[in-house]
Amino acid sequence: MQRNPFREGMPRERSVEPCVMTIFGATGDLTRRKLVPALYNLARERMLPPGFAVVGFARRELSHEAFREEMRRAVDTFSRSRPVAPEIWSDFAKGIHYCQGDFGDRQAYGRLGVLLQQISRERNTRGNNIFYLATPPGHYESIIAALGASGLSGSPLPPWTRVIIEKPFGHDLDSARELNRRAQECLREEQIYRIDHYLGKETVQNIIVMRFANGIFEPLWNQKYIDHVQITVAEDLGMEGRGAYYDASGALRDMVQNHMMQLLCLTAMEPPVAFQADPVRNEKVKVLESIRPLEGDDVGREVVRGQYGRGHVGGRGAAGFREEQGVSPGSTTETYVAIRLFIDNWRWAGVPFLLRTGKRLPKRATEIAIQFRPVPHLLFRKEAPAIEPNVLAMRIQPDEGISLKMTSKGPGAMTLQPVVMDFRYGTSFGADPPEAYERLLLDCMAGDSTLFTRRDEVELAWRFITGILDAWSAEDAPALHIYPAGSWGPEAADRLVEKWRRV
Amino acid sequence: MQRNPFREGMPRERSVEPCVMTIFGATGDLTRRKLVPALYNLARERMLPPGFAVVGFARRELSHEAFREEMRRAVDTFSRSRPVAPEIWSDFAKGIHYCQGDFGDRQAYGRLGVLLQQISRERNTRGNNIFYLATPPGHYESIIAALGASGLSGSPLPPWTRVIIEKPFGHDLDSARELNRRAQECLREEQIYRIDHYLGKETVQNIIVMRFANGIFEPLWNQKYIDHVQITVAEDLGMEGRGAYYDASGALRDMVQNHMMQLLCLTAMEPPVAFQADPVRNEKVKVLESIRPLEGDDVGREVVRGQYGRGHVGGRGAAGFREEQGVSPGSTTETYVAIRLFIDNWRWAGVPFLLRTGKRLPKRATEIAIQFRPVPHLLFRKEAPAIEPNVLAMRIQPDEGISLKMTSKGPGAMTLQPVVMDFRYGTSFGADPPEAYERLLLDCMAGDSTLFTRRDEVELAWRFITGILDAWSAEDAPALHIYPAGSWGPEAADRLVEKWRRV
Repeated sequence: MQRNPFREGMPRERSVEPCVMTIFGATGDLTRRKLVPALYNLARERMLPPGFAVVGFARRELSHEAFREEMRRAVDTFSRSRPVAPEIWSDFAKGIHYCQGDFGDRQAYGRLGVLLQQISRERNTRGNNIFYLATPPGHYESIIAALGASGLSGSPLPPWTRVIIEKPFGHDLDSARELNRRAQECLREEQIYRIDHYLGKETVQNIIVMRFANGIFEPLWNQKYIDHVQITVAEDLGMEGRGAYYDASGALRDMVQNHMMQLLCLTAMEPPVAFQADPVRNEKVKVLESIRPLEGDDVGREVVRGQYGRGHVGGRGAAGFREEQGVSPGSTTETYVAIRLFIDNWRWAGVPFLLRTGKRLPKRATEIAIQFRPVPHLLFRKEAPAIEPNVLAMRIQPDEGISLKMTSKGPGAMTLQPVVMDFRYGTSFGADPPEAYERLLLDCMAGDSTLFTRRDEVELAWRFITGILDAWSAEDAPALHIYPAGSWGPEAADRLVEKWRRV
Repeated sequence: MQRNPFREGMPRERSVEPCVMTIFGATGDLTRRKLVPALYNLARERMLPPGFAVVGFARRELSHEAFREEMRRAVDTFSRSRPVAPEIWSDFAKGIHYCQGDFGDRQAYGRLGVLLQQISRERNTRGNNIFYLATPPGHYESIIAALGASGLSGSPLPPWTRVIIEKPFGHDLDSARELNRRAQECLREEQIYRIDHYLGKETVQNIIVMRFANGIFEPLWNQKYIDHVQITVAEDLGMEGRGAYYDASGALRDMVQNHMMQLLCLTAMEPPVAFQADPVRNEKVKVLESIRPLEGDDVGREVVRGQYGRGHVGGRGAAGFREEQGVSPGSTTETYVAIRLFIDNWRWAGVPFLLRTGKRLPKRATEIAIQFRPVPHLLFRKEAPAIEPNVLAMRIQPDEGISLKMTSKGPGAMTLQPVVMDFRYGTSFGADPPEAYERLLLDCMAGDSTLFTRRDEVELAWRFITGILDAWSAEDAPALHIYPAGSWGPEAADRLVEKWRRV
């Protein structure tokens, strides 16, 4: 009966507000695969604000009805709750509209404005607008400029306008700064919601909860007790048709600059004063400011880049990166990167953070592993000449959960054995947690930007990444190591740490 | 092939030595239920020393053969590996002998001495002897005196003699001191193995391993991070024919003085220098010395005693303690006791240790629960006005294992939920761990007294217990609370702690 678990325990001021969401790039993949299925699921769970409406904006000629039909097929294919429930759909679909136009065509924005006003009157959405930029990033600047020029950029205050921007947000420090500068010609920073869907994942948010809703971790969470941290984002897939995009991007931009830097920040940050947008983002920014830059010679020593060649994945032959569709045959784009970095602050002095990500690795797995220091004194040195150190592993996906590797007494005599204490998110809470986009869209409707990235975060992350990119494009650039598809990446990465975890 | 997991990783000097074990009280329950089944299991796993032999000593007239038959039936009934394997039994049984005699009859000890010499020659056990006192405790002093007088008390050095003494070791401080004094007239302290079978339990030894083979617990293991500790030994059974014994003993003597004080020591002690007899026992003694004594008025405030009346257990009516066979109808013996005590040292200042044990409680469960302090700052105070503190629970029996209660993010919005990270001993190592007596008998054969209690330990534990006993027998003694069989004990115990754990 209208039970809304998203609102349980929520502070009163944090509630979703009536609005219309316009999606630029409405006929694209992101809209079909993620955005509209997420909105439909929110509708199904009665979590959307009253009167909520969607406007698809794209270049293709489509009637409202044809667009609705396309979106229904998308939900039927990609929603976590499918097939579509007809009565829920028909209600939800009444709020779906379509507006045809070129992203740079000012007249189209005029038509859009008229449509938005009409919807607001009909559905009582109070003139609140969300604009979702789901187009290729090359269109971001012109869309924002057109919103500004046509009077649609609005204000942070009611009737409010908020703009969600998909990654990639820039392709290096300069371009990110330029995009921010241009955006802020038309919009206030509080209106801009830079989305990193990793922050919408339940298990990513749980990093914060684990750390700060439990008394036992924080006392151990520093250089005195932690030996090093390993953050792994492994993918078994190759290009899957995204070769052209990926060849122009690479692992560092595609995965490290955004998702992995976010995981790093949540793992390393000081306790924020409150779980609110600015306190949390201020602490993340402090981490990013403290990362020791890698530049010039550092990069050859602390970073290993690789690209997959031919190999075997899941028992079948797999093509090399340069053979993938859309990839240049002479490409030097990295599909693997491993980085050892240090956070120069009081808490983390001397603790290596190891980041590694790659395509065509043996499996798909994202995890953060905290490896603690060895015991200071071997009480059982006769029985066990060495004891494996404790490891706390936060599994982001799949098999979401947390495990703690400990040493226990083996059966019989005083022998010691490593054992694992485990908690599984799925078995504990039942299946079907909300998808990242559901959470984040709802947060935007509520004006809560805690899980979106702020301008300074994005730029600081790019500053670190750009140092590496620059070294890679220098004349004496460190080698690009070719690794077989289906392997754990180049052997050169083994020099960065005594032992990479088996994830 | 002769694989001996008990010896794996063992220091070379720690190996079992050929010997004969004489059991006084060989026709009693302990021999049949525990000792001979344990020895048989060790034989089956080829862990006994070569030539090992058993002599049963008791008052009943029995032939060697009749005693062997009785022991075979005992193994068939009580061994964890049954039925008896005939070829193993026939080999083991060749070493079983019987010696009839009164425990005070010096002539019988003469016959025993002759038999032991004969066995040693025939089986090459090098004159090494273990004497196991499995009689009612009233016979201990006369048996030890007779061993001394008949020249059987031997020496700690080869050919060695060791004496294992079953609990109860005294019934108050004076009687324990007297027994120790008399024993040391004939024996050196190194020859005396006071057995507390709790120390032979895998999960009890694992308390030490958990604490000192893992780097992450020790930094948290003190008054700065621990709110309080609860040690529970709950039993669902009533008297089961032991009413007369129990009426003369009570919960404090039967369970707290020995087992629970040992659990307390292992939980609270400083890290010993090595896992060896004297370093470990020195640390336990330091804990016992630091317990703030409870005397006079303290007892009424810090201790609650109870006795079960009629009630319901497992859906069936259960008799009250005073109705049990062998129990005096006006008995004031406690079948339940709860104690709040403090350990006055640097580590534990101000941390309450709560001990509770009882008969006829709703279930059988032994566990040590470390409850940590609440988080110092409620980062999520809007989402969760209060957070349950972390609890590390070491389950001694049944369902042996370790669990850690944590707070995790619930699915959906930022709600917090308690979850449990769990490790189960049984599922991790397979079934059938060795029984406590197996481990302890083997330790005695190897001359390792780490898991036996030393004279000063016993006396210090009695010192604490006797303070309570004295207050209970004073004229203005605190009340004995009657609780219904099948309940969690008297409500009066609730004043000792904010919340007793549900075990």
